[in-house]
Amino acid sequence: MNNPIKIAVDAMGGDGSPEKVIEGISIHSKKNNLTNYIVFGNEDLISPLVDKFEIQKNRINIIHTKNIVENEDSALSAAKKGKDTSLWLALESLKNNDTDGMVSAGNTGALFIIAKLNLKMIENIYKPALSGLWPNKNGMNVVLDLGANVECNEKNLVDFSLMGSALHKALFEDETPKVALLNIGSEEIKGNNVIKNTYHELNENKNPLYEFHGYVEGNHIMDGHVNVIVTDGFSGNVALKTAEGTANFITSELKKAMTSSIIGKFSSFLNLKNFKKFKNKLDPRLYNGAILLGLDKPVIKSHGSTDALGFANSLNVCEKTIKGKLIEKIKENII
Amino acid sequence: MNNPIKIAVDAMGGDGSPEKVIEGISIHSKKNNLTNYIVFGNEDLISPLVDKFEIQKNRINIIHTKNIVENEDSALSAAKKGKDTSLWLALESLKNNDTDGMVSAGNTGALFIIAKLNLKMIENIYKPALSGLWPNKNGMNVVLDLGANVECNEKNLVDFSLMGSALHKALFEDETPKVALLNIGSEEIKGNNVIKNTYHELNENKNPLYEFHGYVEGNHIMDGHVNVIVTDGFSGNVALKTAEGTANFITSELKKAMTSSIIGKFSSFLNLKNFKKFKNKLDPRLYNGAILLGLDKPVIKSHGSTDALGFANSLNVCEKTIKGKLIEKIKENII
Repeated sequence: MNNPIKIAVDAMGGDGSPEKVIEGISIHSKKNNLTNYIVFGNEDLISPLVDKFEIQKNRINIIHTKNIVENEDSALSAAKKGKDTSLWLALESLKNNDTDGMVSAGNTGALFIIAKLNLKMIENIYKPALSGLWPNKNGMNVVLDLGANVECNEKNLVDFSLMGSALHKALFEDETPKVALLNIGSEEIKGNNVIKNTYHELNENKNPLYEFHGYVEGNHIMDGHVNVIVTDGFSGNVALKTAEGTANFITSELKKAMTSSIIGKFSSFLNLKNFKKFKNKLDPRLYNGAILLGLDKPVIKSHGSTDALGFANSLNVCEKTIKGKLIEKIKENII
Repeated sequence: MNNPIKIAVDAMGGDGSPEKVIEGISIHSKKNNLTNYIVFGNEDLISPLVDKFEIQKNRINIIHTKNIVENEDSALSAAKKGKDTSLWLALESLKNNDTDGMVSAGNTGALFIIAKLNLKMIENIYKPALSGLWPNKNGMNVVLDLGANVECNEKNLVDFSLMGSALHKALFEDETPKVALLNIGSEEIKGNNVIKNTYHELNENKNPLYEFHGYVEGNHIMDGHVNVIVTDGFSGNVALKTAEGTANFITSELKKAMTSSIIGKFSSFLNLKNFKKFKNKLDPRLYNGAILLGLDKPVIKSHGSTDALGFANSLNVCEKTIKGKLIEKIKENII
């Protein structure tokens, strides 16, 4: 029989924590018998929630800590809070091999810097990139960086192409990933110097791991013609959040339009099942959980404002990353 | 009786030109009796289209030119093509006061540089910004820059705040515009140095023309809590195009989901009118036409891939800019 894997969970980060975190663990634990959870945070708050959400006691272990990183902390002030925050201790357990992967819904900048202080990088990679899955017409894109690095140079973007492709290959083994650089024009002449130089670098020094497909504009991210979309953390975050805002706007406008008359209400009711299927496909909670790619251990960032279901999905991403030996596969693909 | 206004039209730029341009003029001319069109481009191609789309001959004047700026031209190579391209001649007619405004669906970089070579800037403004309307829950945002300037400094972003507010005030007179900077976090600590410095500049040196409301993230662009969203041309273009791609993806997924069963088809048919209302509200052609704000004459950029209806709308934006004396109002508000 396989030994259970152990996920380190920062219980205190994000809106509505620790409640949503513990409820998320409850949801995840019922579907995954072979995962245990080491939870870092305020035991006085967490213990009653473990009872409330009926988590089996032998599968959860609470490490008490009062000190926490706040959303408002800068990355630096979070690091200065020292080694007894829930975030630091969770990452330290990963460093010490007491756990196999780590999940936090807290402050991205703090997670980024404290992870870098505790963990090693994959050889030859300089910066970790927040890497997420993004639906497209034919399946899933890997998009990176989604917000870890505001500014990136050519070497970083080439690294991201490599890591994103390795991740895509590890997740969807059947094809050679197609990489594109996010830009504001599909012609070679647009964009800033870093993007243009990266284009030439990727075009001239071919890598057998992936095919380079040039530039992609924001309106073609979801076309499904490429699999890995590479950008700096500023543009990646703007794209991700604008897509989220647009989806919210459209679904709320749609709801208004579809129920603005008696016939509308009636026919929308008839079509409820189809509408639910549609909403499920777009539910951002199902894509929640971005990997901080480049570190030599699995560190997963959950959206700060997701709910228990979204948090459970980021635990799912962590579990898959561990069981699928993604980091090892990425290392193999890079070397 | 008022004299008709004259719009200079570059007939050769964008996909499907000159046909979509001439059809767009036909659509526009039927709704606006007091607008005439000076059209620059290949007369052999344009003349038959004027007949085909039944445009009154006394309202359209074709200035023949064989040389055109191609989509693939860099801004510099477009400028080097000289003064007999349809783009150059259209802008020159504006410079010479032969026309009152100008519209092109062609190459943005070329439009930008040739407009700067021909026209003056509004006093104290260093860079023009592509400024568009973007729907939100309560009405309309002005968003700038949508792609004219890949890199911007603090002075540019402060100028954009001023110009965007002046535009918003001129269009929607009833309120003091609320300005926000597009960033990847709502806290003061995130973003790059240019954005952080601009934040402090806008926060410390208040301008009576607008209220500064700090940062906005991509997912809140459409919330309607602010009216003017300021960003560099790279991020603005990524945001705009990602929103466009997301909207396309969602409506195509919705269509699939809603018609995937007999009941679905039947109830969707019942709800057709509401669905059309919804689609109309989101139709990107209705928002087509971005103003190159900062120049002392109205120059409007139409989306290159829009159709005749979208092009007609950019003529509408140009007409409103002229008749509403927007440039004058912006100048007044800036001084």
